[in-house]
Amino acid sequence: MTDLPSFDDVVAAARRLHGQAHRTPALSSRTANAQLGAEVFFKCESLQRMGAFKFRGAYNALAQFDAAQRKAGVVAFSSGNHAQALALAGRLLSIAATIVMPRDAPPAKLAATRGYGATVRLYDRYTEDREQISRELAQQQGMTLIPPYDHPHVIAGQGTAALELLEDVGELDALFVPLGGGGLLAGTLLAARALSPRCRVYGVEPEAGNDGQRSLRSGSIVHIPTPDTLADGAQTQHLGQITFAIIRREVADILTASDADLVQALRFFAERMKLVVEPTGCLGLAAARRELERLGLQGRRIGIIVSGGNVDLARFASLLAR
Amino acid sequence: MTDLPSFDDVVAAARRLHGQAHRTPALSSRTANAQLGAEVFFKCESLQRMGAFKFRGAYNALAQFDAAQRKAGVVAFSSGNHAQALALAGRLLSIAATIVMPRDAPPAKLAATRGYGATVRLYDRYTEDREQISRELAQQQGMTLIPPYDHPHVIAGQGTAALELLEDVGELDALFVPLGGGGLLAGTLLAARALSPRCRVYGVEPEAGNDGQRSLRSGSIVHIPTPDTLADGAQTQHLGQITFAIIRREVADILTASDADLVQALRFFAERMKLVVEPTGCLGLAAARRELERLGLQGRRIGIIVSGGNVDLARFASLLAR
Repeated sequence: MTDLPSFDDVVAAARRLHGQAHRTPALSSRTANAQLGAEVFFKCESLQRMGAFKFRGAYNALAQFDAAQRKAGVVAFSSGNHAQALALAGRLLSIAATIVMPRDAPPAKLAATRGYGATVRLYDRYTEDREQISRELAQQQGMTLIPPYDHPHVIAGQGTAALELLEDVGELDALFVPLGGGGLLAGTLLAARALSPRCRVYGVEPEAGNDGQRSLRSGSIVHIPTPDTLADGAQTQHLGQITFAIIRREVADILTASDADLVQALRFFAERMKLVVEPTGCLGLAAARRELERLGLQGRRIGIIVSGGNVDLARFASLLAR
Repeated sequence: MTDLPSFDDVVAAARRLHGQAHRTPALSSRTANAQLGAEVFFKCESLQRMGAFKFRGAYNALAQFDAAQRKAGVVAFSSGNHAQALALAGRLLSIAATIVMPRDAPPAKLAATRGYGATVRLYDRYTEDREQISRELAQQQGMTLIPPYDHPHVIAGQGTAALELLEDVGELDALFVPLGGGGLLAGTLLAARALSPRCRVYGVEPEAGNDGQRSLRSGSIVHIPTPDTLADGAQTQHLGQITFAIIRREVADILTASDADLVQALRFFAERMKLVVEPTGCLGLAAARRELERLGLQGRRIGIIVSGGNVDLARFASLLAR
């Protein structure tokens, strides 16, 4: 297997991202502190460029392309934030990006990806295999395939969010991190081990898609069907080889949150913190609200990574109105 | 008339507010820059404690109470952000706050004000005069009446938002500031004159309530009936004596924004910047989008003060869904 990325890689990523990514604010709320019975710091990656932490990993990966890779371009398959992140990073670095997306993807997502300057290669979900199409593009045209999470440069880039948080607010007793494929969680673990060694880092995944929790318990990567959850950024079917290797070594535990808890957290963010957060971005707060006491973390210093804010306005409005 | 507050008063207010008010982030958005054709910095007072800049002025006023005033408490009439701001500042400084509110105020606002520990004195809008009730409470019980904008300590406190913005991003070519009674605009003028002398500061009020614009043109304070506008934080009927004296001396101009433009700006904040902003907080962006070219400000450095985020979730959802 590839060498695992290290904290030094996160530091190098932070240097590459300087002036390119926003240094997002770490916000606090007395109401949140009172409700949770802890001192809570929210790292607001919803306020990151293109609306999610994914920009960090994508940019860090593309910034390390050599001349031949730059010329041939990058390819990825994603209908979510990774697509827009690679498209934007490609534009900034003058690297052509091709994104393989389903023909029936929401028109807004297709338009957003094209708006960042990427070429969209449509495929039919029912008759074609997006991984195969991507690999063919990579082989035939020399493009570099950048996967959404299981890549050392992507993981190192995602770790810069926790790096900034810990630099800004100091050591923490615990961190709650949304978990899909594990890029953000693995990167966070690298940053936390170095900057706040006693910090317990928890991954949080949707209750309906607890493959990460089951993988941790069983010791090997569990595959599941695409889970039915509001958290569309965490609908992954399995962890990656690299992300799982880091996670199993260092994570305190993997928790879950129900869709109902996600909606409650989403409403809290909107009503009390004036933030638009996508359901996946609510995983950390949702779990913290339910589990803090059980975990013996009351009265402690807690970080919550708010991973993104990319939610369609009509959908957001309907979740608020529930 | 009272001596007008000065920049020194704003600096003193910033010292008092240190560690009490949030130093709110100055956010930028490449999409906003591209749409406006300028470099734009948003001072996000929607992320301030209790959700609006009003906390700054209220706290600055209460922090200067003498022993007798502290003992007797503070009284105010407001059904909006000023009520919650005074209630919260009173709680933090252990000063009893009484807020005179209409009996038919939204239950959520009554609950929020009580939630911050204030006593609510209800009155009947149709048969009672809230100013008279407040004055009686002040006279009979020795309470100090703190008006929502026309008070030197309130104005100086509100000026700390622009002070922070200019400290954080450096000098600006123009600033767009929501205008109701003029506390925020007057305070901003004091800060901008000292820290960015060439900065043109524009007040922005609702099109349906352009009393400020008419006052500036005519040279004396114009009174209007309560205007019918989405911007409920700027439904004031007239500027104050002190705020008008500062505004007429220094403002570049007073602009207006229609309700339709406010809704467009509100949607932009939610969709592209992931922020929940109340309609009044959208005044600056709404005017900048329409007027920047006419004002010769394209390509320049622009500040926009986003005054607050206190909008009922159901109302917010319905504005998003329009």
